[in-house]
Amino acid sequence: MDVEAYMAERIPQIDAAIEARFERASDRVPAPLSGAMRHLLFPGGKRLRPVFALAAAEAVGGRARAALPLAVAVELIHTYSLVHDDLPCMDDDDWRRGRPTVHVAFDEATAVLAGDALQSEAFAVLAEDPVAAADPARMLFVVGRLARAIGAEGLVGGQQDDLAFEAVKSAGKGGADHVRLASIHERKTAALFQAAIVGGAALGGANDDERGRLEAFARDVGVAFQIADDLLDADSAEAASILRLQGQGDARAGAEGLVERALERIEGFGERAMALRELARFAVRRRR
Amino acid sequence: MDVEAYMAERIPQIDAAIEARFERASDRVPAPLSGAMRHLLFPGGKRLRPVFALAAAEAVGGRARAALPLAVAVELIHTYSLVHDDLPCMDDDDWRRGRPTVHVAFDEATAVLAGDALQSEAFAVLAEDPVAAADPARMLFVVGRLARAIGAEGLVGGQQDDLAFEAVKSAGKGGADHVRLASIHERKTAALFQAAIVGGAALGGANDDERGRLEAFARDVGVAFQIADDLLDADSAEAASILRLQGQGDARAGAEGLVERALERIEGFGERAMALRELARFAVRRRR
Repeated sequence: MDVEAYMAERIPQIDAAIEARFERASDRVPAPLSGAMRHLLFPGGKRLRPVFALAAAEAVGGRARAALPLAVAVELIHTYSLVHDDLPCMDDDDWRRGRPTVHVAFDEATAVLAGDALQSEAFAVLAEDPVAAADPARMLFVVGRLARAIGAEGLVGGQQDDLAFEAVKSAGKGGADHVRLASIHERKTAALFQAAIVGGAALGGANDDERGRLEAFARDVGVAFQIADDLLDADSAEAASILRLQGQGDARAGAEGLVERALERIEGFGERAMALRELARFAVRRRR
Repeated sequence: MDVEAYMAERIPQIDAAIEARFERASDRVPAPLSGAMRHLLFPGGKRLRPVFALAAAEAVGGRARAALPLAVAVELIHTYSLVHDDLPCMDDDDWRRGRPTVHVAFDEATAVLAGDALQSEAFAVLAEDPVAAADPARMLFVVGRLARAIGAEGLVGGQQDDLAFEAVKSAGKGGADHVRLASIHERKTAALFQAAIVGGAALGGANDDERGRLEAFARDVGVAFQIADDLLDADSAEAASILRLQGQGDARAGAEGLVERALERIEGFGERAMALRELARFAVRRRR
């Protein structure tokens, strides 16, 4: 299976679904706010999280389409987290993907508000999708799984500890170790992968055993993805980078080991999980 | 009915439910983040929005308890909006309710993250409540209603236009008029009242006719509340204050007229809507 061909088929479906949300709302939303919300969405990034959500639905025998609302939601959440992380009071980045960040292209207040609204919109997408009416219990599980993944115990808590980690390292103090870094990666990066994959599988009709296996699969893939990201950013020496703690060779071997372990967890899923497996491999071998 | 006695009975129930969420999560959340999330919650404000949610459930013949998860959710959302509105890039306030604002007591990054996590937690509260398992379709309606109320078309859009309104007024330019101000108040303030009241009623078992009447009731009460708030803040001359456009006497008469109209909309609700009616009157006559 050619993973790039799979992605090339799925990404336009995801883009169209995101675009449809904005067309619907545009006349009632202040123009700068709408522009700021769209700024990092179009053109977007790799759309890896939403593609994972669709592949997870297929991996348990469901249709990719069933997970489309979640695919949109996780991309909106990912985008909100980038907009807020770039703020002057956080990572203070002026550029992302070769373009000015939202607070540079607009202003700081608009960037805060755009991130806030992207988060709300993610939950609106889930609640208002036809899947929600057809199987509300299933969709409510996905809402709860996503909310927990991105809150104080997940994405936001990971970013908070990431900033603290940076402060400790900048001061030249010790205290930064593998356990703390793994915990940051699990929350800041892997938690959203887990919500995308487990939620996508739930919408595809996963049973409890499949959900449990995919929780572990997604955590390993998410951490491996973060390590691969640190390797791509090796020159810029990010705060909570694995490269603060080990060399590039060891880090790459660690990421590949995590993906191998992840793949073992879903060995019994058969042919229909082919795309999910290839995406896991792609997550660590990609070159931007 | 003594509205203050009603509130004195309900507020401890709401506080206990909020506290229970934090006790559950505290060991997995970074300490500064947890502290920043709690900073404006305890001691809190008037808890008017959550009390409205409980009274709305009772107004349609349900139990107040049914709306408790929504009461918690709207208070978390209200608190998140205050934390972000106080930021230096927004209203730049150092004090709120006689204490330092979150970005002063902690730091700016922590304030952004605390607001973000409070929003996520609101949706987690709804999705994880036993009501969600018992009647997921009803709870999913509440999730969607809340998400729409606080997003780009609602709370956040209203704040965006509020900041633009302030810029126009500060520059001494015209363009500020009743229509624009009413639109800001409807989104920035009334939308969350609507989600609290309509959602509370939904959880109490409202039918479509009741929901429709309460949408209109809640919009009028929300706008009236905002006018009353502007009157209490008359000295500080807030940006999008009604007092930029009319005198205190006219503004007060306008707020009271809105409440009268709101009360007419729920005339047929009978005795069980007594608390809801008294809360509507209280919302405009309160003195802090």
